Amino acid sequence: MRIALDAMGSDHAPEVDVAGGVRAARRFGQEIILVGRREAIEKELAKHDTAGLALSIVHASQVVEMGEHPSRAVRQKSDASMVVGLKLVREGQADAFVSAGNSGGVLAAALASAGRLGRIPGVLRPALSTVIPTLTDHPSFLLDIGANTDCKPEWLVQFAIMGAVYARKVLGIANPRVALLANGEEDIKGNQAVQVAHQILRQLELNFVGNIEGKDLPFGLANVIASDGFVGNVAIKTAEGIAKMLLTLLREEIKKRPLALLGGLLAKPAFKAAAAKLDYRQYGGAPLLGVNGIVVVAHGRSDALAIENAVRVAIEAIQGDLIGAIRQDIKNALETLGRAA
Amino acid sequence: MRIALDAMGSDHAPEVDVAGGVRAARRFGQEIILVGRREAIEKELAKHDTAGLALSIVHASQVVEMGEHPSRAVRQKSDASMVVGLKLVREGQADAFVSAGNSGGVLAAALASAGRLGRIPGVLRPALSTVIPTLTDHPSFLLDIGANTDCKPEWLVQFAIMGAVYARKVLGIANPRVALLANGEEDIKGNQAVQVAHQILRQLELNFVGNIEGKDLPFGLANVIASDGFVGNVAIKTAEGIAKMLLTLLREEIKKRPLALLGGLLAKPAFKAAAAKLDYRQYGGAPLLGVNGIVVVAHGRSDALAIENAVRVAIEAIQGDLIGAIRQDIKNALETLGRAA
Repeated sequence: MRIALDAMGSDHAPEVDVAGGVRAARRFGQEIILVGRREAIEKELAKHDTAGLALSIVHASQVVEMGEHPSRAVRQKSDASMVVGLKLVREGQADAFVSAGNSGGVLAAALASAGRLGRIPGVLRPALSTVIPTLTDHPSFLLDIGANTDCKPEWLVQFAIMGAVYARKVLGIANPRVALLANGEEDIKGNQAVQVAHQILRQLELNFVGNIEGKDLPFGLANVIASDGFVGNVAIKTAEGIAKMLLTLLREEIKKRPLALLGGLLAKPAFKAAAAKLDYRQYGGAPLLGVNGIVVVAHGRSDALAIENAVRVAIEAIQGDLIGAIRQDIKNALETLGRAA
Repeated sequence: MRIALDAMGSDHAPEVDVAGGVRAARRFGQEIILVGRREAIEKELAKHDTAGLALSIVHASQVVEMGEHPSRAVRQKSDASMVVGLKLVREGQADAFVSAGNSGGVLAAALASAGRLGRIPGVLRPALSTVIPTLTDHPSFLLDIGANTDCKPEWLVQFAIMGAVYARKVLGIANPRVALLANGEEDIKGNQAVQVAHQILRQLELNFVGNIEGKDLPFGLANVIASDGFVGNVAIKTAEGIAKMLLTLLREEIKKRPLALLGGLLAKPAFKAAAAKLDYRQYGGAPLLGVNGIVVVAHGRSDALAIENAVRVAIEAIQGDLIGAIRQDIKNALETLGRAA
C-alpha cells in the first residue's frame, strides 16, 4: 500500500506531519508518500532515523492555509499539497490520502479541483465526519459535520448508510446502531428533512434505532449518527465549548482554594486518565465519506501520534475496501427503495 | 401584581411548586395564585407558615403530564392547571403565569387552547428560550430551543428582536450583543435561513455582532443568540450531555485511585462553587416570548428556589412592560425594513 500524506497540513506543518509519517512508515511497514515542499520535507526527514523505511517525496509548491476560503483556494492553487496528494490517489499512484489541513479545502479539492476524485457512483453528497468519544467501549461516528447545509432527506439517508459501512469496516462494529440527530426521540420530532429521512431509513436493511437527542451523543446510544452538516457542526462545536468552559471553571475555582489546590494535585492522575479517554489523537482522523477514493482528514491541531493514527485509519479503510462497500450498500439501498416504491 | 403559578407543573408537584409559591409570596410581597387541585394544594400549604402572605387558590381538576403530546393534551384537558392559569392572564385576573410543567404544553395552551393568549401583534412565531450560564458576569439567552423547526429567516430575525428586548428588560443588559447561531463566523456561513436572516439583521437598529459558533456559546460572546428551534434544541441538549459525561468520567477515574479520592474530597468546595455558577435554579425560568402575556417556563426538575426565581423573572417582566416593549420593537423593525425596501 502507498499512502499519500499531506506534509503541509497541520498547524505545525511540516514538522509534525513528517514526524507522523515517519512513525507510520515504521509502524505499518507501508510506503508513505510525503506531499509538499521538497526542501522543507527533506529538512524534517533529516531529523529522523529513516533507515529501511519506505518514505518518498512528491513536490508540491503551494499550501492551502487554514483561514482560506476552501473552494477559492484550491481553484487558485493547483499545485497545493492537498490538490497534488488527491491527484496521486486519482491516478492510482497512491491508495489513500491523509491530510491535517483545511477540511473544506480537502473536500473542495476532492470534488472540484483539476485532478478531482469525484463522488462514488450513486452518492449524492460527500460528508465530513468525526469520531465522538463515549463512555462505552466504542466511539460514536457523526456525519455530516459541515460539508452540507440544508440537507435533503435522501442525503441524510446516505450519510447513515455510509456511516454504517465505515463503522463496520474501520471501527470494527459488526452491526452498528444507526440514528438520526433530532430534537426529540419520537418519530414526529425533527425538522422536515429528518422526519422524511426517518421514514426512509425504516425501510432499509440497517440497524436503525430512530432519533437520538444531543444529550445522548456521548453515551453511545447509537454507533452512527446522521445529521445535517449545519446541525452536526453546531453539536460538535458546542460539545467542544462546554468541555472547555467546564474545565476552565473548575481550574479557576480550584486555584482560589489552597486545600482544593492540593486536592487537585492528588487527583491529577484521574484527570489525566479522563483526558486520555477523550483524546482525539487516538482516533487520528475521520474520513471524507462519499468521494471516490480514501481520504482521511486529521485535526489541524494534530501531533505526530494523531498523524500516525490517521494513516492507520486510511490503511484500515483500504484493507476493508471501504469504497467498494459504500458503492455496494448505496446500490442495495436504491434497489430496496425501488422495490418498496 | 398577581402571579398565577401552576401548582401541578414540576416533577415533584405540588410539593415543590407550592413551597416555591410560598417563598415567592414572602420575598416579593405580591399575590401568588396557586392553580391546580384545591385539596392537594391546601394540604401542601398546611405545611408552611403562610400568615400575612397573599396566597390564593384557583381550582383546576386536570394535569398535563411531562410525557404527553402537548397539543393533544391541552385540547383534551380544558381544565388542566396550565390551561386555567393562562386563562387567568388572558382575562386580566393575573399579570403573569409561571409553570414548571411540559413546556410544549404551555406553548400549545397559550396558542391553541380555549382561553388562549395568542400572539403579540406582529409576531410570527413565539419561541421557547433558555438562559445559558457563561464565564462572564452575564448569562447568555438562547431562543428558539424547540418550539419551531424549519424556521424562515423572518422568524429568526424576530427571535433576535424579542431576545434583545428580554435581555434589556429582565437580564439588565443595556445594549445587548445579538448573534445568530451558525456553523462558522463568516457571513457566508449558515444554512439558507441563517444567511438571509444575517442580511436582514444588519439593517436593523440592533447591536448585531454576526454569527457565533457552538464553541462560543458558554463564553458570552453574545448576550442574545437566535436559532432555529431544532438547532437550538440540539445545542442545549448536547451541552447537557457533554457536561454529564465529563463529570461521570471524572468521578469514575477519581474513584479508581485512593489518592485521587482524597484529592477529590479536598477539592470538593471548588467543585461545588463551579456547580453553583452553573446552577439553573438561580435563573428560575425562561419566558415564552411572543405570546400576548407574560408566561415563564421553569425546568421540570425545579425545586422551591427555582420556582421562587421563576416568579421573580415574571415580576421583572411585568415591571419592564416586556409585552409592550416587544410589540414596539417588532413594529419598529417592520418600519425600518419597510423604509429600506
